[in-house]
Amino acid sequence: MREIDFIRGFLKENIEYVQKKYTDKAAVTVSAKAHASDLLTEVDLTIQKRFVDKVKKRFPDDAIVGEEGEFSRFPNDPKARAWIIDPIDGTYNFIRGLHPIFGISIAFAHKGENVAGGVVLPITGEFFLAERGAGSFCNGKRLRVSNVKQLNAARIDIDFSDLNDRKLMLQRGLDVFRNVGQLRCYGSAVASICQIATGDTEGYLHMNLAPWDFAASQLIVEEAGGRSSRLNGSPLRLFDAKQGILITNGVLHREMLAMIKS
Amino acid sequence: MREIDFIRGFLKENIEYVQKKYTDKAAVTVSAKAHASDLLTEVDLTIQKRFVDKVKKRFPDDAIVGEEGEFSRFPNDPKARAWIIDPIDGTYNFIRGLHPIFGISIAFAHKGENVAGGVVLPITGEFFLAERGAGSFCNGKRLRVSNVKQLNAARIDIDFSDLNDRKLMLQRGLDVFRNVGQLRCYGSAVASICQIATGDTEGYLHMNLAPWDFAASQLIVEEAGGRSSRLNGSPLRLFDAKQGILITNGVLHREMLAMIKS
Repeated sequence: MREIDFIRGFLKENIEYVQKKYTDKAAVTVSAKAHASDLLTEVDLTIQKRFVDKVKKRFPDDAIVGEEGEFSRFPNDPKARAWIIDPIDGTYNFIRGLHPIFGISIAFAHKGENVAGGVVLPITGEFFLAERGAGSFCNGKRLRVSNVKQLNAARIDIDFSDLNDRKLMLQRGLDVFRNVGQLRCYGSAVASICQIATGDTEGYLHMNLAPWDFAASQLIVEEAGGRSSRLNGSPLRLFDAKQGILITNGVLHREMLAMIKS
Repeated sequence: MREIDFIRGFLKENIEYVQKKYTDKAAVTVSAKAHASDLLTEVDLTIQKRFVDKVKKRFPDDAIVGEEGEFSRFPNDPKARAWIIDPIDGTYNFIRGLHPIFGISIAFAHKGENVAGGVVLPITGEFFLAERGAGSFCNGKRLRVSNVKQLNAARIDIDFSDLNDRKLMLQRGLDVFRNVGQLRCYGSAVASICQIATGDTEGYLHMNLAPWDFAASQLIVEEAGGRSSRLNGSPLRLFDAKQGILITNGVLHREMLAMIKS
């Protein structure tokens, strides 16, 4: 079994569970993590546990990195075979609001590189898959980034995230904020990043993102012709210390990087 | 026929048309208005025209104010009976992106006050209705704003809108930006404002909003127990010159107003 098939299978099996929990979300158990608006639900925990159990059974020697609990540390050997999951990216949106903007994100990495990835937005039904070198797809349709070349005609998604990240955004990202045509903040990295792959958005900027937030969607964008980097232009590697990222349609990458203060 | 029934009827009749156009949106005619990312579609024009025709037939003496074309001027007598429509609020989202965050908004005003309003989000199906003094409802369910009292546990929607508004936001709204727990920017005023009424979001801030963007949803929030004002705290009147607005769950209104620079 190829890793992409394992990812596809797991995502497929779990869509219905998430849909059910979302429909009856008033009954979902919620707790706070680092601060009042950093939330965790039983759904995050269940999805991650199911995934961990399945990987341990099928690939017992592989490392597992996940957003929740003990799995949030990086593997000792960053080049080992590793599975990276964000069980629900956009937990706050899952819990509150009319817009079901959240996704399950799973990537497989080897030799430090994400080589297969899948993201599903369970309520709206977009199912993204990509393998390194083989293109990226949404519900079976091949994806291609936009060709928008002018920043004032572009839409950029920024995550304003928590208060520390927001301070950094004001220090470093203000010129982007001031110059893009349209600005959005949806509160889910994977939903925003995948929109670059579909050609619906030109870029995504975050001051401090963990690998489970971008491991799959970065690959999905790159395989659709887009580009990713750290904020100084260096390659976006999975297991760097947590820091900022820029992902774009490629055409606008250099111009946006030049706007970001060091 | 009460005005609220007229609003309900018109919205109901037009949901399917918008759904169809959205499903086949690649075929929709789009043009630019003031700048590259200020867009207009045939759907905005058709909905507005249908509404104008219907009002002229049923209420020939009433004024009509709408976002598009000749209807975007205010009535000579601001206290006259007036219908206020935004045919598609969130046109950019209609055209681009995975998230169908846009709505049709209609309000009826008399003696300068919005007394009936309806908003429908055609793709996700939320149908909001409110009459002054009679409460507000979504799909028949009575609405009530949240009771979140702490700004760091609140979610606030800000519209960063166009470049001039964004400059103003940096001058006046930065303290809100720096202090709220969660920040979102969805790019549709009515979708964001209605989320206050459902208790899913605590506030909405915009530096420069036209009456068709808030006439219905302001009423929907107020009838759910929320509060609205201009940025200096004065009442939010429909036909003021275009300027900033703050709409909240009420509890947080005073604290947020104090954060906004004059």
